[in-house]
Amino acid sequence: METTITVTEGAEASGDGHQDTEDVDWDALDDAMTQSILAFPAETEGKGNQGLEPTIQADGTKEYHLTAAITKWEVEPGKFVDAWTYNGMVPGPQIRVDLGDKVRVILDNQLPMGTDIHWHGIHTPNNMDGVAPLTQDLIKSGETFVYEFEAVNPAVGMYHAHHHGHVQIPNGMFGVFLIGDTQLPLGQTISGIEIPQNLEVTHEIPMVLNDAGVIGLSLNGKSFPATEPYVGKVGDWVVVHYYNEGLQIHPMHQHQFPQLIFAKDGIPLDNPYWADTVNIAPGERYSVLLRLSDPGVWVWHCHILTHVERDEGMFGMVTAWIVEDV
Amino acid sequence: METTITVTEGAEASGDGHQDTEDVDWDALDDAMTQSILAFPAETEGKGNQGLEPTIQADGTKEYHLTAAITKWEVEPGKFVDAWTYNGMVPGPQIRVDLGDKVRVILDNQLPMGTDIHWHGIHTPNNMDGVAPLTQDLIKSGETFVYEFEAVNPAVGMYHAHHHGHVQIPNGMFGVFLIGDTQLPLGQTISGIEIPQNLEVTHEIPMVLNDAGVIGLSLNGKSFPATEPYVGKVGDWVVVHYYNEGLQIHPMHQHQFPQLIFAKDGIPLDNPYWADTVNIAPGERYSVLLRLSDPGVWVWHCHILTHVERDEGMFGMVTAWIVEDV
Amino acid sequence: METTITVTEGAEASGDGHQDTEDVDWDALDDAMTQSILAFPAETEGKGNQGLEPTIQADGTKEYHLTAAITKWEVEPGKFVDAWTYNGMVPGPQIRVDLGDKVRVILDNQLPMGTDIHWHGIHTPNNMDGVAPLTQDLIKSGETFVYEFEAVNPAVGMYHAHHHGHVQIPNGMFGVFLIGDTQLPLGQTISGIEIPQNLEVTHEIPMVLNDAGVIGLSLNGKSFPATEPYVGKVGDWVVVHYYNEGLQIHPMHQHQFPQLIFAKDGIPLDNPYWADTVNIAPGERYSVLLRLSDPGVWVWHCHILTHVERDEGMFGMVTAWIVEDV
Repeated sequence: METTITVTEGAEASGDGHQDTEDVDWDALDDAMTQSILAFPAETEGKGNQGLEPTIQADGTKEYHLTAAITKWEVEPGKFVDAWTYNGMVPGPQIRVDLGDKVRVILDNQLPMGTDIHWHGIHTPNNMDGVAPLTQDLIKSGETFVYEFEAVNPAVGMYHAHHHGHVQIPNGMFGVFLIGDTQLPLGQTISGIEIPQNLEVTHEIPMVLNDAGVIGLSLNGKSFPATEPYVGKVGDWVVVHYYNEGLQIHPMHQHQFPQLIFAKDGIPLDNPYWADTVNIAPGERYSVLLRLSDPGVWVWHCHILTHVERDEGMFGMVTAWIVEDV
Repeated sequence: METTITVTEGAEASGDGHQDTEDVDWDALDDAMTQSILAFPAETEGKGNQGLEPTIQADGTKEYHLTAAITKWEVEPGKFVDAWTYNGMVPGPQIRVDLGDKVRVILDNQLPMGTDIHWHGIHTPNNMDGVAPLTQDLIKSGETFVYEFEAVNPAVGMYHAHHHGHVQIPNGMFGVFLIGDTQLPLGQTISGIEIPQNLEVTHEIPMVLNDAGVIGLSLNGKSFPATEPYVGKVGDWVVVHYYNEGLQIHPMHQHQFPQLIFAKDGIPLDNPYWADTVNIAPGERYSVLLRLSDPGVWVWHCHILTHVERDEGMFGMVTAWIVEDV
Repeated sequence: METTITVTEGAEASGDGHQDTEDVDWDALDDAMTQSILAFPAETEGKGNQGLEPTIQADGTKEYHLTAAITKWEVEPGKFVDAWTYNGMVPGPQIRVDLGDKVRVILDNQLPMGTDIHWHGIHTPNNMDGVAPLTQDLIKSGETFVYEFEAVNPAVGMYHAHHHGHVQIPNGMFGVFLIGDTQLPLGQTISGIEIPQNLEVTHEIPMVLNDAGVIGLSLNGKSFPATEPYVGKVGDWVVVHYYNEGLQIHPMHQHQFPQLIFAKDGIPLDNPYWADTVNIAPGERYSVLLRLSDPGVWVWHCHILTHVERDEGMFGMVTAWIVEDV
């Protein structure tokens, strides 16, 4: 994109309410937005949230290995940042265990500073809660620590640093940790809409939101147009687990398909409800179910407009469904 | 108001916790607040949210005409801004159709740049979703576009620009689009309070919140004391549809009258609940029912204090009920 | 703590994504965080939220005396600020009355400017609503005003200034006002978890959140490590009433113990639900029930990371449960 944009039209209130519109190159602004959108989906190096396979121990324990380090991460095409990562990806590798599993996570700290891991939304013994120096000693640079607990509760959990979390988390040190199966409100009728007893979930998408640090405004560690597009067919049922690992709220708006909020922080709601815009605050998770009812390209984005658009075009917290007819 | 205010007391944390209070003209601050409140309600030119009448076509289609342009708008007494408007008003004209109606909206773009309209919360074919260049071509300056869809779902919807929405929406390009009748929880008992089976709604108020652009902190396009006052009688039942078209949350606090939240984004809740403060995030809508139980003047405002008060007095996101005894 | 921290690592996005990490004294950052946490709990002068005893009048009226004044307040160890207080404490004294009580509050205004009191979430006659000059005259500096009303509804209410609330409230002028008993969902089964019919509440904690003014980021008027620690035993049931008197949202995360949200703004929910992170917006109150299920030290904090951590260590909106085994 080679257009030149000469004047910034901010979304801020101007003192006197006047805009000197004569000097604005409106065509350039139009073109910048159009070109930025047509660049989607864009290729970048690296993909976060990849499943992590355990090694199974003699006693059945599932053992996972995480390495924390500062590594290059391509947030958007051509923009490489010094991310703080688990196993070199943002979000860190996705861990999924069954209810009742014995879990061991070995953390190798290759960061230049200390760290620890808090298992947010997951029941653990106190000495595994990851709050140095209260529940464990700090895991200093170069050290290793072994976390061990039993997966006693279903969870839409997350793991992230607690020590200097204001630096380590925004810069990339967060991951998804799921325990057990997602419990859907099958057969229930909610606001007059029946959820089929026998529906099959075609996509289960953890969607991690960030807005600060070197990662910045992003979905699963990537900024538009590098965000992942989602492809489905008319009639597909989709589960999304929203995770907010940022510092601000993000009201996530899905065009066309109402979202049934069926769990808060991984705990099923006895009374699910529908919304087209789901507001997630830092630390919260909302699990939603939706049906791809119509074909076409349907964008899906944070509705804080400055988190998705700027004079240079679309960016940040936007992706889209590409729904094929059947 | 001719008082002089000599020192600003900010709501920001000061570094050392000390305040040099000796130089503050406290009486002037008192007077500024009092005078600013007594100025309510203030006359301004222009009123947003006015109902738009369709022309009915031979096949029953309801046809609406919208013109997008930059026009003068009096946000508060004497403050005229270059608003981006539909039909010269902020919010744009209110459109209300029945379930099953065929709808046609002809948009004439008199802005200096391109635009499009997204029908937020409304079910449409993909090529009517208003996301240029993905679902349609950009409607360039001087061009016209025809949106057509059938109103297949009840909706507390909104329409607004999507293209450079971070500029066009905060500056005024948003409107209310209602489909069908509001479905109230009549006859239900909620937290021990029975909602009468036969209640009559005396006021149905779409309340659009904004906080940025040239419109700034406002209710339905006006800043206090130019916000619209609401007049009712003891015993009246009121429906409010909150719409957030801004960039921040707004927790709307109604003095005295609890608000029954009965729909989220236009979809009725199976389990409504009461609140005195309703937090609306960007893109969200909450529909509430309340009863004017007591006579008097009862203010109604955003509870982010800096959205309603400043040293110069009350401003922004405040209005009031004037409830007459019977 | 005598460590020297040479370079600030902000949580802000950097323009180019590069961090010049070579000049950072990482050990100093590690040590600063550790020492700041070990300083908890720290002694400071003054405790807010202390119960206020009424004088009982001949007709049974409960009479309370409040004095508004600018007084010194130790927000964190060694940091004294010029707080705006009721009876010299932040939050102001806690008032608790029974349903049906006649209440009189005599306010003596020793501030340098006018004030008034709004009884947020409490039903009062209009002339007691505390919105000068609409419902009463301003209570000028040096004047006294008598508020009188009957406690006709149960309430998790708060009292605070309305006049120049953007200055007076963030600086400390807020307090807790409870009417009647907390109505718990005893005997209900919520998301598969049964709430015992006969549970005994061992702690009832009003937790007032602030983030601005001279008080700043704080829980009940104190910043970590001066925040109050909470001590309980395994099996204890705890009620928390969150109050947001600040200007921002605060998603409060309790490690390990899920929080059952059973009332919004003091009104019991017919359908309570669980969360590990409860997001409270300005003006809102959420009442939650939780069970101390496990021994240990479990932190409890706002999940906006910059509200709890900075390069110099932990601060602000953090406290902890110290749970003893039985």
